[in-house]
Amino acid sequence: MNDRFLRACRRQTVDRTPLWIMRQAGRYLPEYRELRARADFLTLCRTPELAVEASLQPLRRFPLDAAIIFSDILLPLEALGCELAFDPGPRIAKPIRCSAEIEALSARPLAEVAPYVADAVALLRRELSGCVPVIGFAGAPFTLAAYLTEGHGHDGFPAVRALRAADPAALDSLLEKLTALVIEHLNLQIAAGAEAVQIFDSWAGILSPADYSSFALPAVRRVIRGLRSPRRDHVPVIYFAPAADHLLELASSTGADVIGLCWRTRLDFARRRTGGRVALQGNLDPAALLAPPERVRERALAVLDAAGQEPGHIMNLGHGILPGTPLASVEALVAAVAEPERWPV
Amino acid sequence: MNDRFLRACRRQTVDRTPLWIMRQAGRYLPEYRELRARADFLTLCRTPELAVEASLQPLRRFPLDAAIIFSDILLPLEALGCELAFDPGPRIAKPIRCSAEIEALSARPLAEVAPYVADAVALLRRELSGCVPVIGFAGAPFTLAAYLTEGHGHDGFPAVRALRAADPAALDSLLEKLTALVIEHLNLQIAAGAEAVQIFDSWAGILSPADYSSFALPAVRRVIRGLRSPRRDHVPVIYFAPAADHLLELASSTGADVIGLCWRTRLDFARRRTGGRVALQGNLDPAALLAPPERVRERALAVLDAAGQEPGHIMNLGHGILPGTPLASVEALVAAVAEPERWPV
Repeated sequence: MNDRFLRACRRQTVDRTPLWIMRQAGRYLPEYRELRARADFLTLCRTPELAVEASLQPLRRFPLDAAIIFSDILLPLEALGCELAFDPGPRIAKPIRCSAEIEALSARPLAEVAPYVADAVALLRRELSGCVPVIGFAGAPFTLAAYLTEGHGHDGFPAVRALRAADPAALDSLLEKLTALVIEHLNLQIAAGAEAVQIFDSWAGILSPADYSSFALPAVRRVIRGLRSPRRDHVPVIYFAPAADHLLELASSTGADVIGLCWRTRLDFARRRTGGRVALQGNLDPAALLAPPERVRERALAVLDAAGQEPGHIMNLGHGILPGTPLASVEALVAAVAEPERWPV
Repeated sequence: MNDRFLRACRRQTVDRTPLWIMRQAGRYLPEYRELRARADFLTLCRTPELAVEASLQPLRRFPLDAAIIFSDILLPLEALGCELAFDPGPRIAKPIRCSAEIEALSARPLAEVAPYVADAVALLRRELSGCVPVIGFAGAPFTLAAYLTEGHGHDGFPAVRALRAADPAALDSLLEKLTALVIEHLNLQIAAGAEAVQIFDSWAGILSPADYSSFALPAVRRVIRGLRSPRRDHVPVIYFAPAADHLLELASSTGADVIGLCWRTRLDFARRRTGGRVALQGNLDPAALLAPPERVRERALAVLDAAGQEPGHIMNLGHGILPGTPLASVEALVAAVAEPERWPV
């Protein structure tokens, strides 16, 4: 078993820095584009065999140190009765905007509405047979609230900020429902065999530190406290809030074992800013992979240098890999992480 | 002449904190919506009488301390031969993506291609007859490059980051052309009577500190060095880069007199972080104006408190006012700034 990734999550020593890539099962892979030509995005997510096939594709090409289940953070919203579509960005048929609509939301059990996520995790775990660990994931409550109120991606997500201003109690109630849903969603994945989980707080960065502290951060803390590790080993939690450099100190107090950093944050300062309490993941700019391989190598080595020699760094991009990324760039990244002279035996 | 705004830009003492509002001529005003029903956005921008009418509308309702010319940061791109549309977000007919396309860009004189901006500034200045100062504005070179390469607004603007990775010399060349254009654009407005200018670096926040320092920041510095103040008084420059808390220390070294802060940044820390070198503008969350008036007052007073007693604060929102903002909220904001007990005589 390659346990580099899990050891780094726990800030234990490793033979070399582990690497996985956000959105590693994605459009930059010709075989993924082929899969998508046969099935739309939601069908892929909802069919465990197809989701597992997508999850395995990058592993067949590159010696990555973890597999992440192919899914989407919005899927559990279907348990609240939301109708989802992707065109290709997410669309929620009926955004939830007021207190009455929030009170009317009642959750059906996720294990009934969306059994396919846990099923896919279990199948992926079997297929990998211990070769590398499986990462499950979910959206953070605030980020789900941002989508649910707006209905789609929108710069600055004014609808959730409007709800907060006009009716803070309604937002609290929405976050409470979403927190329960996220806990249920992650625990199902952990029970199915996920060996680590990542919480995506994709839009927390739109908040001021004061607002983040008062409602988004407490919801993440409740999620993490609500996770149940079925085995003796604690399942590490990665918390990733991009474009949230101004919230980094606060984010390191969520209870997560690992903080994912986007490329905007100076990795060399992040260890001190997080008080040495957490491992760090990231943070090569995905756009760096659009350069020639030699340049990719330089940028990757610069990230490894910035991470320093302390245990507790997981190499990754600072955001999802871009669809136009050449395969040669990923090869250069993989090779940079494995450069032997960096790791004297 | 109400010179509170200009005095605060220069960090001189004022009788009370000056206030203006980003996008103060906008959809939250019924009279603006009426104007827009008669003329589309580009017509408004290109017709000095209509642009001035839009600029004056908020001043007729609220005792704001500055007028800003109604325009758009992308208009000068027409001097480079770009075809613009708004639907309602900006669209550039042919995005510029490679070195050959960049080399082919040649600028016609802005005073010929887009004389309407300077004409509108001159007319606005006459109409106001010294009542409050006129602010001109432009986009920063990097932000214009982000639009020009992407073609439209897009989260993270991957095209400009891709260009940077694949061909940094091409981006440098593009930034050089845009820097000259921005200098020309601002100097035309200053010559026409603008008494202060704001540079919008709307997308600088997508950059890491290293990338920002290496190409976006030097371009802003060149712009500011290139400005010519026609009178004895130096025309103050405001630099506004939202979602760029991680770049604040660097932004304070652009040479700007004032740094605009978005709501994400802690205003109470910003004075120290900018080394007392600059005045500060902002930073009430625009979403705060969607709350009842009493709550708007509280939030506005909290911003004034965070700004402290040192001279050199201009009250503003942390981003453009939202279209759904009630007029009563703007009234509450105006009243909060004017509360007499805060300013012992």
